[in-house]
Amino acid sequence: MTDQTPLRRNAAGIATALDVLRQKFGARLQTGAALREQHGHTTTWLPNQPPDAVFLPRETAEVQDVLRICTAYGMPLVPFGTGTSLEGHVNAPLGGLSLDFAEMNQVLAIHPEDMDCVVQPGITRKALNEELRATGLFFPVDPGADASLGGMAATRASGTNAVRYGTMRDVVLALEAVTADGRVIRTAKRARKTSAGYDLTRLLVGSEGTLGVITELTLKLSGIPEAVAGATCSFASVEAACAAVIATIQYGVPVARIEFLDALSVRSINAYSKLSLPEAPLLLLEFHGSEAGVAEQSETFGEIAADHGALAFDWTSDAEARAKMWQARHDAYWAMRALRPGFDAFVTDVCVPVSRLAEAVSAAAERAEADGIIAPTLGHVGDGNFHVALLIDPDDPGGRARAESYIGWLNDLAISLDGTCTGEHGIGQGKVKYLARELGANTVDVMAALKSAMDPDNILNPGKLFQG
Amino acid sequence: MTDQTPLRRNAAGIATALDVLRQKFGARLQTGAALREQHGHTTTWLPNQPPDAVFLPRETAEVQDVLRICTAYGMPLVPFGTGTSLEGHVNAPLGGLSLDFAEMNQVLAIHPEDMDCVVQPGITRKALNEELRATGLFFPVDPGADASLGGMAATRASGTNAVRYGTMRDVVLALEAVTADGRVIRTAKRARKTSAGYDLTRLLVGSEGTLGVITELTLKLSGIPEAVAGATCSFASVEAACAAVIATIQYGVPVARIEFLDALSVRSINAYSKLSLPEAPLLLLEFHGSEAGVAEQSETFGEIAADHGALAFDWTSDAEARAKMWQARHDAYWAMRALRPGFDAFVTDVCVPVSRLAEAVSAAAERAEADGIIAPTLGHVGDGNFHVALLIDPDDPGGRARAESYIGWLNDLAISLDGTCTGEHGIGQGKVKYLARELGANTVDVMAALKSAMDPDNILNPGKLFQG
Repeated sequence: MTDQTPLRRNAAGIATALDVLRQKFGARLQTGAALREQHGHTTTWLPNQPPDAVFLPRETAEVQDVLRICTAYGMPLVPFGTGTSLEGHVNAPLGGLSLDFAEMNQVLAIHPEDMDCVVQPGITRKALNEELRATGLFFPVDPGADASLGGMAATRASGTNAVRYGTMRDVVLALEAVTADGRVIRTAKRARKTSAGYDLTRLLVGSEGTLGVITELTLKLSGIPEAVAGATCSFASVEAACAAVIATIQYGVPVARIEFLDALSVRSINAYSKLSLPEAPLLLLEFHGSEAGVAEQSETFGEIAADHGALAFDWTSDAEARAKMWQARHDAYWAMRALRPGFDAFVTDVCVPVSRLAEAVSAAAERAEADGIIAPTLGHVGDGNFHVALLIDPDDPGGRARAESYIGWLNDLAISLDGTCTGEHGIGQGKVKYLARELGANTVDVMAALKSAMDPDNILNPGKLFQG
Repeated sequence: MTDQTPLRRNAAGIATALDVLRQKFGARLQTGAALREQHGHTTTWLPNQPPDAVFLPRETAEVQDVLRICTAYGMPLVPFGTGTSLEGHVNAPLGGLSLDFAEMNQVLAIHPEDMDCVVQPGITRKALNEELRATGLFFPVDPGADASLGGMAATRASGTNAVRYGTMRDVVLALEAVTADGRVIRTAKRARKTSAGYDLTRLLVGSEGTLGVITELTLKLSGIPEAVAGATCSFASVEAACAAVIATIQYGVPVARIEFLDALSVRSINAYSKLSLPEAPLLLLEFHGSEAGVAEQSETFGEIAADHGALAFDWTSDAEARAKMWQARHDAYWAMRALRPGFDAFVTDVCVPVSRLAEAVSAAAERAEADGIIAPTLGHVGDGNFHVALLIDPDDPGGRARAESYIGWLNDLAISLDGTCTGEHGIGQGKVKYLARELGANTVDVMAALKSAMDPDNILNPGKLFQG
C-alpha cells in the first residue's frame, strides 16, 4: 500500500533544523555528549544510538513549534519519557532530536466524581499516585519501572495488575497529541465511552511515538480498595501452577495480581530480598475488595490451589508483609542479575493464550537448559504474559548470538501457540522482524500505510516498529 | 491532510461491477426491490437509500473477490449485519452493493480455558450465547437488539452491562478483515494482551465499515456468574438518582447493570409491560457474583440509595421477576412509542461524564417541555450514557424540524459538558455534522487521512462518519 521512505541519516537537514531550534530556544537546546547518551538506549543489550540534541518542551505550543521545524527540515524526532523501555524505543538510529517531557509533568485536573484525571505526559506513575493520595483514587497500571505516563501510553504498557485493571489500552480515556506537521488533535472527550469516529486514542496508544507526540492524557482512575490481601503459593510443577491460574480466572475470582516465578527466579529473590520461599514454581497473588470480598477471594483461591496440589499457601492481609513481597517482585530483575554478577541480561517478553502457558514456560526452560543459558522466568500469568531473562557471560564470544537465537526461537514459539512476540515491552527496534511473522505482511503493510498517512516525511521516531 | 473523493454516484462503474458479479455468482446476486429496501435504512427517521444489489458471501475468499471487483469498477460496498443501527449506517447514498453476512454466521471455535471464541460476523449475540450455553461462559455485550457480532464490532456497540463488562472495544481480541483492495489482514493473535504494533483491532472496531470488512472475530467471554440479583429503586428527583449512581461507582460496587428511566419512561413501561412501578425517576440494577458477593453488593447499594433518599428499593434474586423486569427494559422503545401510537420516534444518544449527568438529563427534559415534545429518557447511566426518544406527530408540519433542532441542541449540550454526541449509536449519516464539533477539524482530518490510506477509492461505506 505504501513505500517506506528509505532509512538514511539526513545530516544537512538535521544541522539546519538544530540551527533554527538554537535560534529559537538558545541554551535550552542541549547537545552535551553525556546527556545525549543518556537519551539513547541504555537499559538493554541494544546498542546506544544517541540523538544529536535534547530539548525539554514546557507546553504543547513548543511541541508544535519543534515539530514544524522537524518537518520543514526532515529531522527525526524521538519522544522521551524516562527511558525505561526495553526494546530500543528511544534510540535515534538516524540521529535527530530527543524530545524529553521531564518539564511537562503536571497534573492538570482531577475529577473525583468521574474517577478520572488529566495529566501531562512527563509525570511518572508514582508521582501521579502521590498526587492522588487524598482522593481515595489511584492509577492502577504498574509496569514495575517508575515510567512516565506518556511513555506508558506510547508503548501500551501494562504490568502486574493488568489482569484486574487492564493495560494502558483500557485506562486512557482521551489524548491530546501533536501531529508530524505540528497540528494539535484531541482524540476524545471525557465521557466513559464513545462511538464517535475512529478510535484514535487506541491508535496512538502503543504507536511508540511513530504517529504523533502525546502532549496530554485523560486517564481512568480506580478506587483504592477497602481491603487488600496478599498470598504466596508454591506448586510442585509449572503445569500445576498454570492450571491453578486458569481455574482461578475461569472461576471468576477477580484477582488483582497473579504472578508466576519459576524455581530459579524464586531462588534469586530469596537471595536478593532475604526471603525464604520454597524454591519451587510460585504464584504471588493480591486480592482487592471489601473485607468480606477479599476473604472470600482468598478462600476460593485456597481451595483451587489445594485442588491443584499446592505445596504451601500463605495468606496475609498485613500491609508490611505484602509490601515486602511486592518489593521483592519489583526487584526481581536485579535479583536475577545477581545470580551471575557481571553477566549481561537479555530480557524478552512474550504472551500466549493461558491454556498454552504451561507448555510455553516449560519449553522455554528446556531450551535454555539445552543451550546452557541461565534463564530465570517470571510473568503476569493471569494474562498469559511471561518474561525470560537470559544471563550471558560477556566474555563468552558466542554468548550474544546464542541469546539472540534463543529470543528468536521463543518469539516464534509464542506466535506458533497463537500468542504474540510481545505482551507489554513493545516492538521498538528489538522485535521488528517478529511483527511480520506474527501478523503477516498484509497487516504490516496496512500499518505502514497508516504511518505514511500521518507522517509522510517519516520524522516521528523512524526506524521503529516495522522499519528495520 | 487529504482530499475527500467527491461523493457522487458512479452509475457506469456500478453497472459494470454488477455485471461482473452476476457472471461470477449468478442468481446469488439479488436485486429485488423489497430486498434492497430492506437493506437500506428502515429503523429510523433517516430516509431509506437502498443499494443496487445484495450479496450474501459464504466465505472470506468470496468477500475478497467482491472487494476486488468493487475496487476495479469503483462500486460502493456497504457491509450489512442485521440492519438494527439507528444512524443510517447501512444506507447506500451512492448506491452499490450491500454485503449481507447472514450466511457467514458460524461459531468457528470455542476455547473454554482461554475464555474466548472465534466467530463469523453474521452470528447474532443471542445465537452465540445459545451456542455457549453448555460452556458456563457467555458473551456479555448486549445492545438490546439481537444484532450481529460483525455489526456490533463495526459500530462499537455497548448497552446495558457495559458498565461491568465493557463495550465491543473491550471484548474483541482480534479481527480478520478484508481491505478495500481485497487483501486479508489479521489484527492480532489470541493472547489476552499484546503490544505488537498499531492496535488495528481497535481501529476497525467502530470504523463503521469504512476501513475494512470484518470477516472473523475473536471475542473475550465471561463466566456465567454463580449468582445474579436484580433491584429497582425509585427516587424523588433525577439529581438524587444520578448522585446514587456516582456514589455506587465510586464506592467500587461492581454493578453489572445500572439503568436509569425517567418518570415518563416508567409510565410507558408500566402500561406496556403491565408493571406497577412508582412513576418517578427509577434505577434498574443487576448484580453478578458469588451468592455472598451479590448479597453484599445489594446491601451496599441499598445503603447508598437510602442515603440519597430513595423512595422505594425492591430487591430480588428470583430469575423470573428479573427476566420480566429486563424484558420490560428491552421493550422500552416499543413502550415509549405506545405513549403516542402513530407518532414517529426520533431516538438520539449522548454520553457525558457522570458528574454532569443530572444536569444533562434535567436540561433535556426542560427543553423538551419548552418545545412541546413528548421525550421519554433512559440510559446506561453507569457510563453517563442516555437516550432520548422524541415522539413526533407525522401530521405536524413543523415536527420533524423541531426534532432535528432538539437533537442538534442535545448533541451540542453533551459536547459542552465534555461529553460525546454518541455513546453507542455511532456517527453513521445522522451525526456527521457533530463529529467535527466534538473533536475539531484537525482530528477529523486525521480520520479522513487514515480512511484515504486504507481506502483510496472510497468504496467502503462512503457517505458515513465524516463524509456528509
